[in-house]
Amino acid sequence: MVVPRENNAPHEVVIIGGGFGGLYAAKALANTNVNVTLIDKRNFHLFQPLLYQVATGTLSPADISAPLRSVFSKSKNTKVFLGEVSDIDPKKQEVILGDETIPYDTLIVATGANHSYFGKDHWKEFAPGLKTVEDAIEMRRRIFSAFEAAEKETDPKQRQAFLTFVIVGGGPTGVELAGAIAELAYKTLKEDFRNIDTSETRILLLQGGDRILPHIAPVLSKVAAESLQKLGVIIHTNTRVTNIENNIVTFKQGDEVTEIPSKTILWAAGVQGSAMGKVLAQKTGVECDFSGRVIVEPNLTIKDYKNIFVIGDLANFSHQTGKPLPGVAPVAKQQGEYVGGLIQLRLQGHTLPEFHYTDVGSLAMIGQNLAVVDLGFIKLTGFLAWVFWLIIHIYFLIEFDTKIVVVIQWAWNYITRNRRSRLITGKEAFLESQPVNNNSPYQATENKQPVKL
Amino acid sequence: MVVPRENNAPHEVVIIGGGFGGLYAAKALANTNVNVTLIDKRNFHLFQPLLYQVATGTLSPADISAPLRSVFSKSKNTKVFLGEVSDIDPKKQEVILGDETIPYDTLIVATGANHSYFGKDHWKEFAPGLKTVEDAIEMRRRIFSAFEAAEKETDPKQRQAFLTFVIVGGGPTGVELAGAIAELAYKTLKEDFRNIDTSETRILLLQGGDRILPHIAPVLSKVAAESLQKLGVIIHTNTRVTNIENNIVTFKQGDEVTEIPSKTILWAAGVQGSAMGKVLAQKTGVECDFSGRVIVEPNLTIKDYKNIFVIGDLANFSHQTGKPLPGVAPVAKQQGEYVGGLIQLRLQGHTLPEFHYTDVGSLAMIGQNLAVVDLGFIKLTGFLAWVFWLIIHIYFLIEFDTKIVVVIQWAWNYITRNRRSRLITGKEAFLESQPVNNNSPYQATENKQPVKL
Repeated sequence: MVVPRENNAPHEVVIIGGGFGGLYAAKALANTNVNVTLIDKRNFHLFQPLLYQVATGTLSPADISAPLRSVFSKSKNTKVFLGEVSDIDPKKQEVILGDETIPYDTLIVATGANHSYFGKDHWKEFAPGLKTVEDAIEMRRRIFSAFEAAEKETDPKQRQAFLTFVIVGGGPTGVELAGAIAELAYKTLKEDFRNIDTSETRILLLQGGDRILPHIAPVLSKVAAESLQKLGVIIHTNTRVTNIENNIVTFKQGDEVTEIPSKTILWAAGVQGSAMGKVLAQKTGVECDFSGRVIVEPNLTIKDYKNIFVIGDLANFSHQTGKPLPGVAPVAKQQGEYVGGLIQLRLQGHTLPEFHYTDVGSLAMIGQNLAVVDLGFIKLTGFLAWVFWLIIHIYFLIEFDTKIVVVIQWAWNYITRNRRSRLITGKEAFLESQPVNNNSPYQATENKQPVKL
Repeated sequence: MVVPRENNAPHEVVIIGGGFGGLYAAKALANTNVNVTLIDKRNFHLFQPLLYQVATGTLSPADISAPLRSVFSKSKNTKVFLGEVSDIDPKKQEVILGDETIPYDTLIVATGANHSYFGKDHWKEFAPGLKTVEDAIEMRRRIFSAFEAAEKETDPKQRQAFLTFVIVGGGPTGVELAGAIAELAYKTLKEDFRNIDTSETRILLLQGGDRILPHIAPVLSKVAAESLQKLGVIIHTNTRVTNIENNIVTFKQGDEVTEIPSKTILWAAGVQGSAMGKVLAQKTGVECDFSGRVIVEPNLTIKDYKNIFVIGDLANFSHQTGKPLPGVAPVAKQQGEYVGGLIQLRLQGHTLPEFHYTDVGSLAMIGQNLAVVDLGFIKLTGFLAWVFWLIIHIYFLIEFDTKIVVVIQWAWNYITRNRRSRLITGKEAFLESQPVNNNSPYQATENKQPVKL
């Protein structure tokens, strides 16, 4: 419960994580009479829904980032603290970062989710995911290096492996990656190479369920799939990936097992709650679901601890529909705002009714002039949906300084069909040719342990 | 000389390096009847003069980069080849990249310059330089991490070391870095921290000679120094750095030796010709100067090899003034264009008079509304010079897709005084506190081996 502090010291709110949940909670508490400490590992908030555009060379990391200190520079009750929380002590009401401790009266845990490789963590090396700026730069390096390596490769089999992109997971990230790589290969890069024809690129999108974008209406899934196929993407639904190793992905549809030599395998499948979920479970006895998400109460606190909130991707909130709310930005944002408001009301002796998510709809970009938008009462496809997607994302970027810059870049990319941010940076500038499995693509092999996507 | 090829095959021009020299040579030869192979380690051309703005959080790497394939996508006689040249064989007329060889009729070497630590290469770790995108991101990480670490530090001495920035070298890069860090500390970040006052930041600019910006008129050096001092930068001229180790820089003015504890030491001092200079010297017997630059003939070829050109920062061209031309973008650009023209004329049996550099003047940005411009006949300072600096840089960025984006970012930074690109990325998100030498700053110690800046 809210413990009154000695000497009328201000109520101390500690927020762990500067994603959408933490950011909007801190914003709701900005310039109020509580003290806020916002802890993050990074010095910036990241607009994750656009990370795929960094990975595919359209935007720069800074275009979709907001320095946390800059966001709160005018809110003098807000302290940004750079660091990684290692533990919490709910009895002493302290957050622990290595040797340091930060006391709290109210704690908001908003540390989000990580990739899940369904227990096959060794796949990560061969099939990187997309959660951080470094992930996006590494993905960008792999994608553009693959074309460079294909340009140099003389062996047709190796060349085909370099020109084969496999995306595991048919949710929004997988769909948006597949669409962006298709436009890259079949449009942007078409004139850029001399030895290869980039239109020979193969892009495979592997989906575990029976349709891509399972969170939107089936009719829109169908439109999205048709649009992607028209762009040149090969979609496999009801498909389980059974193995990923260096340059080769194995998957199973029904009883048929297929091996695809591919130099660029991208992971857009499972997510799991971040490590702080386990810490909370250990220290407070709260229950987590099978994906490591913390089961929260109707007011987003955890069982037995009215002063600990869990919000965003780390929270399993099932009180509204019986199913957990999806791990998307609008849920985290609304939860952050709710908790910020509730904390203020509590200090005045009031409370709030339980959290209620206002569904703002779902949308996915497929390509130039192509998107799908599901607002429940209204469904859009094609150009109209694409314009809507743009407007919504520009609206959300309002919180960022970067709106104009992003709009200009999008406009410029649209006109020139170019991608200016396609730098191969970080590790070595280009991939060395590596031998791939010499089996022909799509060759049936023995069944291996299936893993559900 | 130009060797006619069998079967009337096109004349093969190989260009090593996609900096200003190589890029403009390739542009001069675009869509002509020669074959051009442009070899670079990276897949993009980098506008190095603006790299300091990446290091200090104003621009993103992609804003000052142009994908090489994109630049030459419409020039079908130009092949971009990603790779690192390990050797050349001037007898066989071949360029060697590991196992691969590329034959040439004419070779243009434009591999530029690297940092020189004057034989003290172990300083590099503690005082990184600024030549590549990775350098800039590392410098950015160190600068912004230093403020973050200072915010957490409780020991006043340590805190002061985190808030002390030492820039070694008073040329354009050093001056521009010092000015940009001063604006960062005294303006941009002023409201962003809660425990530290960033106006306590100390910025030292160490210069070997008797004035900063020695390449421009003395009157402008004076104005630049005064402007920097007004911004808060401490300038030491006639200063030799005698030692750099972890968190401490030692320098000597006359007989006085000073030690400064500093967590952020940045190197903007010497340059030396890249490794290809040595390769050329070994294989062709051409002479290099003390900085490793190749002594070139009046037409930019090397002695005894009329079909090997060396241009840009790697070339020592002293035929015009008796002194080597400076290692700046306009020299490289004009040399690239000259060589491109000369190759075409030669194939028609003609030639060109010796290379002549048209001096376009020198300029350096100091801060908001502050720059110095030396056009010889006209000298500008203050706001006028700053506007001129902007126009010139926007003009040069014309070759890039990014002009509008950069202009918008500059305008936005100007209005808000913010720096949106201040991401701490790459390695760990923040520096751990490290013990610094406990001697008081500016403490005189024993003389050590002086090194001329």
